[in-house]
Amino acid sequence: MALIVQKYGGSSVKDLERIQAVAARVKQTCEEGNQVVVVVSARGGVTNRLVADAKTLHEQPDDREMDMLLSIGEQETIALTSIALHAIGQPAVSRTGAQAGIVTDSVHTKARLIDISGGDIPQQLNDGKVVIVAGFQGMNETGQITTLGRGGSDLSAIALAAALKADICQIYTDVDGVYTADPRVVPNARKLPEIAYEEMLELASLGSKVMQSRAVEFANKHDVPFEVRNSYNNNPGTIVKADITLEDVVVRGVACDKNQTKVVVSELPDQPGAAAKVFQDLSDAKVNVDMIVQNLGRDGIANLTFTVASDEAYKAEKAVTECLGKLGRGKVDLADRMAKVSVVGIGMRSHSGVASKMFTALAENGINIQLISTSEIKISVAVDLEKADDAVRVIHTSFDLDKE
Amino acid sequence: MALIVQKYGGSSVKDLERIQAVAARVKQTCEEGNQVVVVVSARGGVTNRLVADAKTLHEQPDDREMDMLLSIGEQETIALTSIALHAIGQPAVSRTGAQAGIVTDSVHTKARLIDISGGDIPQQLNDGKVVIVAGFQGMNETGQITTLGRGGSDLSAIALAAALKADICQIYTDVDGVYTADPRVVPNARKLPEIAYEEMLELASLGSKVMQSRAVEFANKHDVPFEVRNSYNNNPGTIVKADITLEDVVVRGVACDKNQTKVVVSELPDQPGAAAKVFQDLSDAKVNVDMIVQNLGRDGIANLTFTVASDEAYKAEKAVTECLGKLGRGKVDLADRMAKVSVVGIGMRSHSGVASKMFTALAENGINIQLISTSEIKISVAVDLEKADDAVRVIHTSFDLDKE
Repeated sequence: MALIVQKYGGSSVKDLERIQAVAARVKQTCEEGNQVVVVVSARGGVTNRLVADAKTLHEQPDDREMDMLLSIGEQETIALTSIALHAIGQPAVSRTGAQAGIVTDSVHTKARLIDISGGDIPQQLNDGKVVIVAGFQGMNETGQITTLGRGGSDLSAIALAAALKADICQIYTDVDGVYTADPRVVPNARKLPEIAYEEMLELASLGSKVMQSRAVEFANKHDVPFEVRNSYNNNPGTIVKADITLEDVVVRGVACDKNQTKVVVSELPDQPGAAAKVFQDLSDAKVNVDMIVQNLGRDGIANLTFTVASDEAYKAEKAVTECLGKLGRGKVDLADRMAKVSVVGIGMRSHSGVASKMFTALAENGINIQLISTSEIKISVAVDLEKADDAVRVIHTSFDLDKE
Repeated sequence: MALIVQKYGGSSVKDLERIQAVAARVKQTCEEGNQVVVVVSARGGVTNRLVADAKTLHEQPDDREMDMLLSIGEQETIALTSIALHAIGQPAVSRTGAQAGIVTDSVHTKARLIDISGGDIPQQLNDGKVVIVAGFQGMNETGQITTLGRGGSDLSAIALAAALKADICQIYTDVDGVYTADPRVVPNARKLPEIAYEEMLELASLGSKVMQSRAVEFANKHDVPFEVRNSYNNNPGTIVKADITLEDVVVRGVACDKNQTKVVVSELPDQPGAAAKVFQDLSDAKVNVDMIVQNLGRDGIANLTFTVASDEAYKAEKAVTECLGKLGRGKVDLADRMAKVSVVGIGMRSHSGVASKMFTALAENGINIQLISTSEIKISVAVDLEKADDAVRVIHTSFDLDKE
């Protein structure tokens, strides 16, 4: 008998019919001889409605009260899912995050996990019940309700799977799994049967919206294999785990993030630490800087170019302007929005030639590279926004990702 | 400095504007130098919507899961009310029933209070905060969420007022207070400045819908004075307490319950215990029997007439039919729906002549009395439904209730 944790997101429980579909799948999983723990999100649209109500009352509602408010979304879903299971004869019981022993720190709206006891879940499972747990939420050590921030339900599911020593964790969403590229951009993109945690992490942080990084990081750290599946069909999904068996795959997929803005800082004094000061002030302003290029110009004048997420561009501009004021020299410009296109694969660690193949393919298709950044298992380039989809297709073909 | 518990029902918090109005009144109460604990219900309509969702999934949803589901209604209101108070500069913090230390037994959907600690409410009040508590809900001793059943938020407020030794408890609703009769039936009915617990109890159980009996019973038992007020204006309400100062008031008000059905059991064997068996079986079937008349007919044949709440009439008929089958004799008929008209007043304990004045007034106006029941502080008569409003007006006038 296997223990399976299944997580269903907001689109999978958005109305009563979808909740009934979830219940049917859970019951089926039980009838196949498994014990099942279900983690659910708020019904699609509920969280946005609650946020809108709060913002109507107060421009910046208190974080603790937002957690009190938003946690009702998952609480609604667990009760309804449990009732839907009862209706088809499957014993089930619901548990809030607090009741499932999900203990966090006190940073409301983006709490970090401290401990997961699972509460009485093992006992309920042994009594033949499915246990439905509210994702996204927990409580701090004084009993206050907390939430884990965006993507928190994925984290709840993976952390519960770790705490309960589940055999597998299934993340149900509205896509069939992880693809070699976005199928809307690359029609012959293939669904990957398997992918390594680190690859999934790079894809998550690179704009592939299947899962948030935090949940994948947790799975990586605690080695919790999980499968990304579609709640609307029975297709096999993508299994995410530590070691993957496929040989000779250097590049696993191509990701694209169209939400980047290029920031150009010019005429910076070429004195030791000037660039460091700029990045320190950006960090103090909580701006994440991505790709960076520094040029030393003539006459001791340095230029600095980097990208930031577009919704942080004005915050970045403000921080740099203030910094340049203190340095006594330099100016800052926000350039156009850019796209960051990346190839990801753990095989890169032991293979060379990936960068040159990528750059050649882009050059042959007349796509200019504006910035470059690399890690052990990825290479990213910034290109013009209007060239982004072309770049993805060209790279996808050049690495034969459309072939089995 | 006084400690005031204010309770706002579903119609008082039905939308964001009403929640802002509640926040304004709470802040005003603080500015008058008081500490304030607020107990709120679910927003009007929310509970009905959740019940409808659950019943779509399951004809008889599980009680424990219903408590999990319905408790989110109050949790939404406490968070929004707290945020509305922050918006006007009033420090405030929300507490679920469990967080406020409201401990109940485990009878889900109609739990009984076991203990109220108040949690950290006194500390929060001393820190200058308003504390917003979710009404209607608590938790049992194993941490499961429970609800107190219909009218539970009134009970939460009064029980919290007792636990916190509040100076007064204000129950905000959408009427100005308790009247000598329903103003829609008797245009010159007067709002009562004061009323005794026991009178309020009789009025609550007699169809005056201002408050449920359980909350009034609790207030009576623990001597918690409270005031029924209108959340839509600043009029003084009706104070409900143990001893009231007005002298010489024999009859406080006239109540009318139009939801009664007369049950006639005829040709019952006149053997010892036959009537007792009928009432025992009705009690086993959880039917509350109200007014009762037994006639011994000729030839040892007895008739029994009583009233039940109309929505229990068929359950009553079924229980009596089965009982008569066992007794081997007798038949049962459901007669027309009736109205029960009652006069209530603790002054009746020391005054005679109330019944004769009431019966005379009805007789002079051609209204037939079908059944009579009395308690120490009330006299009730059953009359034809279409004569009910007339009966209320005639009695109201005969006791001079329209005069100060």
